Amino acid sequence: MGLAKSSNRQIQGVGASPGIAIGRVRITDRSRVAVHEEYLKPGEVQGEVARFIEALDQAREELVAVRDQLSEEHGPEHLYVIETHLMMLQDSMFKRETLALIESEAINAEWALKRTVLKFRDFFAAIEDDYLRERVGDIEIVGERVLRKLVGKQHEPLNDVHSMSLVVAHDLSPADILQIDRQKIIGFVTDLGGKTSHSAILARSLEIPAVVGLERITSEALDGEHMIIDGSAGIVIINPDEETFREYLKRKLHHEYIERELAKLRDLPAITTDGCRISLKGNVEFIEEIPSLTGHGAEGIGLYRTEMLFFNRDDLPGEEEQFAHYSAVVKEVAPLPVTIRTLDVGGDKFVPDLNLDDELNPALGLRAIRLSLRKPETFRPQLRAILRASALGKVRIFFPMISGVAEIRAAKRLLEEAKLELLAEGVPFDEHIEIGIMIEIPSAVIIADLLAQEVDFFSVGTNDLIQYSLAIDRTNEHLANLYEPLHPAVLRSLKMVVDAAHAAGIDACMCGEMAGESQYLPILLGLGFDELSMNAISIPRVKEILRRCSRGEAEQLVKKALTYHTAEEIDRFLKSEITAHYADSFD
Amino acid sequence: MGLAKSSNRQIQGVGASPGIAIGRVRITDRSRVAVHEEYLKPGEVQGEVARFIEALDQAREELVAVRDQLSEEHGPEHLYVIETHLMMLQDSMFKRETLALIESEAINAEWALKRTVLKFRDFFAAIEDDYLRERVGDIEIVGERVLRKLVGKQHEPLNDVHSMSLVVAHDLSPADILQIDRQKIIGFVTDLGGKTSHSAILARSLEIPAVVGLERITSEALDGEHMIIDGSAGIVIINPDEETFREYLKRKLHHEYIERELAKLRDLPAITTDGCRISLKGNVEFIEEIPSLTGHGAEGIGLYRTEMLFFNRDDLPGEEEQFAHYSAVVKEVAPLPVTIRTLDVGGDKFVPDLNLDDELNPALGLRAIRLSLRKPETFRPQLRAILRASALGKVRIFFPMISGVAEIRAAKRLLEEAKLELLAEGVPFDEHIEIGIMIEIPSAVIIADLLAQEVDFFSVGTNDLIQYSLAIDRTNEHLANLYEPLHPAVLRSLKMVVDAAHAAGIDACMCGEMAGESQYLPILLGLGFDELSMNAISIPRVKEILRRCSRGEAEQLVKKALTYHTAEEIDRFLKSEITAHYADSFD
Repeated sequence: MGLAKSSNRQIQGVGASPGIAIGRVRITDRSRVAVHEEYLKPGEVQGEVARFIEALDQAREELVAVRDQLSEEHGPEHLYVIETHLMMLQDSMFKRETLALIESEAINAEWALKRTVLKFRDFFAAIEDDYLRERVGDIEIVGERVLRKLVGKQHEPLNDVHSMSLVVAHDLSPADILQIDRQKIIGFVTDLGGKTSHSAILARSLEIPAVVGLERITSEALDGEHMIIDGSAGIVIINPDEETFREYLKRKLHHEYIERELAKLRDLPAITTDGCRISLKGNVEFIEEIPSLTGHGAEGIGLYRTEMLFFNRDDLPGEEEQFAHYSAVVKEVAPLPVTIRTLDVGGDKFVPDLNLDDELNPALGLRAIRLSLRKPETFRPQLRAILRASALGKVRIFFPMISGVAEIRAAKRLLEEAKLELLAEGVPFDEHIEIGIMIEIPSAVIIADLLAQEVDFFSVGTNDLIQYSLAIDRTNEHLANLYEPLHPAVLRSLKMVVDAAHAAGIDACMCGEMAGESQYLPILLGLGFDELSMNAISIPRVKEILRRCSRGEAEQLVKKALTYHTAEEIDRFLKSEITAHYADSFD
Repeated sequence: MGLAKSSNRQIQGVGASPGIAIGRVRITDRSRVAVHEEYLKPGEVQGEVARFIEALDQAREELVAVRDQLSEEHGPEHLYVIETHLMMLQDSMFKRETLALIESEAINAEWALKRTVLKFRDFFAAIEDDYLRERVGDIEIVGERVLRKLVGKQHEPLNDVHSMSLVVAHDLSPADILQIDRQKIIGFVTDLGGKTSHSAILARSLEIPAVVGLERITSEALDGEHMIIDGSAGIVIINPDEETFREYLKRKLHHEYIERELAKLRDLPAITTDGCRISLKGNVEFIEEIPSLTGHGAEGIGLYRTEMLFFNRDDLPGEEEQFAHYSAVVKEVAPLPVTIRTLDVGGDKFVPDLNLDDELNPALGLRAIRLSLRKPETFRPQLRAILRASALGKVRIFFPMISGVAEIRAAKRLLEEAKLELLAEGVPFDEHIEIGIMIEIPSAVIIADLLAQEVDFFSVGTNDLIQYSLAIDRTNEHLANLYEPLHPAVLRSLKMVVDAAHAAGIDACMCGEMAGESQYLPILLGLGFDELSMNAISIPRVKEILRRCSRGEAEQLVKKALTYHTAEEIDRFLKSEITAHYADSFD
């Protein structure tokens, strides 16, 4: 606009990929294409259908070209996301819905496409799972690519920039991120996106600092302005003054120093000062994340989510497709172990005609193991595929959302059947594959002793457990202050679970967000957890603190914490204790 | 239609009021008036607004006439519902929304009214609470009354019938029910309605057998046909054959015999064979229900819900209005005690402009005490009004949805402040009023020992407790089979709560549906509950069984039940035990 803008404009967004980058703004035209809405004249429908299918084909060709180019540079592990997008272009609800709209309502392809994307967006907005909710980003990105083909507008190349550029865009696709020339582009910020969008996951994996969800950054920043990105804090500062510049330069050097120091820990054991060994593992959704995982010293995958395979598609993945996928993961992470969780989604995501008749309380709905047990025709191929993958490396299997003994017995019965089938067919698998359950429902805590007799390990999902225990929807902004991991009922629940596991001689693991938040480490250690699984990026810091803790002292800390009656009292107590004894030496 | 219809046509609905009635169909025109939708011409808006307001006034006059007539026959306690409807006609969102639509969209009053009712219906459909959800029925009934005035269609009088008539209607308003001539009309069935609609509550209170929610009964039944209503089973049989007729006549006589026998229990104590006394009380929403309560031998009100006062209106009820209301309840039930629960609704219900921006998981949202603590300007008048009412009889107060010690302390602090204010103002109240909490959130179970140190009694809300403990939305039809009151985790939770209460020397009460289901009585007795509060109608039967139980034996029963690992095993065990020892002698 040419208006003089003030210096030091600070904007808060969502930290998508940590690290500090200092450079110059490069605005990139990734803005949404304006859609012209038009009713078709009689006789035009067939032509419009053909035009839409041609645009799909062109978008596909473009994306195939990107993929082929990238596969030389990156190797296969980063291309899964692009394959997903290609699949959406080929045969998906996305395509079918749009065609149906063109035909049934006689509207032009752009309008039909826009309405389809909006319908998906409403649909996804009602999903209680952060991660799944952000999958709508994939649909928007693919839709945008097709829309540009329809209106004949080209993608501006992203790498036509000076060095030390910070890309500012409305949104960036995974293909965009993968094409980034790291010699020139040192970070990016976008209006759209969330912490678990594909683009954010890729940025973390490639270690490019990024802030997303800034809403209006494309209209706030001017081309060529100086800019600072703090990808850890989710902050962007445009046109920083000298003091701010110096401050962030210092932080950047400090951050890089810490990263180097932490990197040295990679191959050291995760062991306390009194010789207690804890297994630190990574939570993984994409095969693309595995290199980062091993790079950060993870001892395997503590939670491999299988939801991605079932998403954004018309049909269900069969046994062979799943086997190919799980095998690739097992091989990629070998010789380290992988813990595969069976499907953890709600019933609404299966309805092939995108029925939007949502459940009233999706968090309390027909989800996860409840759905798998109700649909053995979906569950059986998954069990068989996981079992077959277990012949290729160290695999454990576990079931989400178990609320009682009857459910785990039913799941084990189906697993036994699958084993017998494979045995009869002469197909190899690990006959002693370990079986576990998520502990994330209050009833499972209360009867943890009974459940421990049924399985080989527990894995506590703290996000859901806290949500259900306190009857708090953690995505509800009004209740943020009531989501208390240090609530006495939560600590007692964790203790009941660990004690029940150990009394039965099985391992107590944790794969919720709490496992990766280093301030809770002394508590989790004191409670007696055997394994913590977290975002790869958190492992070095957790390991660093762990190596300075003693389990004996941590047990005393927990004992003392459990004497308090409120989360606030416990929090205050821990802050004083942790400041005194367990502070992160790098902070 | 004059078509010959087959005999013995059986239709399943919702049992709204128990008892069997055998008579002849009397179809009553309570069908919905057809709405003509029309855009106004320029300049017509003001006239349309005036026409709508005149219809409101006419509807009011009609309802005032009904009220005045009824007040002679029924006395004041049954007129509260009609007062509520009058209030809606006078000054409500209902009126304001319709006027806004006429003005902003220039549409005719009928259309605007219809859209307003539909908007409310969508809004209410998203409420997780069965009871509150059915409040939409009041709006539909009031809307229908106004619509009839707009189109000039009269209400057909209901009592212009032969004796032994069974009224068949699309829907019946509370005013209709109150006007029923019991000499002629012995039961009714409707297409619409649910178990907790105002009409159903009134039917139970007046002991008129009724089945509602039949969907198409007005088109199924023919005027003058024979019909049987089984209000307990929710079954309607049209044109019964002779065998069915005999069968139901036998059942009717048996039912009447049992009711007479149970009525004899009214003044006998609720005491076990080994001398343990349990307090049996009633759950009440409306002052109209109190006569039925005392008639069934309740020892007071164990749960008085205050939600009704806050509903279907534009503003919030002030201290004086609440005081008048609570005082009336306290006096009506005196000398028996009443336990008043503070407001238990979600945040969305307060938004004065009917903001439909619902929470994603309302059951896990900003509800009950969370909302009261967030809005002291709403909470304080309620606390003061309850305190003032406590000067007029025996009153206890309790708080819903407590998840931890911090919340109950905050609530008590506000109650203390209210007491100090009243003291300073010289207004009388019971300084030793007992304070309790609902136990309905899993975290409250886990820290029941800590909470017991803060209050004078616990009241377990089993509906929510089971829902949250098992992470099951009990209104979700897909999960009905997972809603298991006998889940080992539920029984253990109840035991933890009772044991914690008794260790602290306070009473353990239960006011959930489980308290009134007689098959659970031996379990609740064995767990050690001191008080059970239920629908008045269930009290005689529960008392009858109680008087044949021994607490010692019930304790052994619970001990044995807790050794099983699944709800199914426990259920099977209890069925065999209860058949052997505790069967209802009247069944």
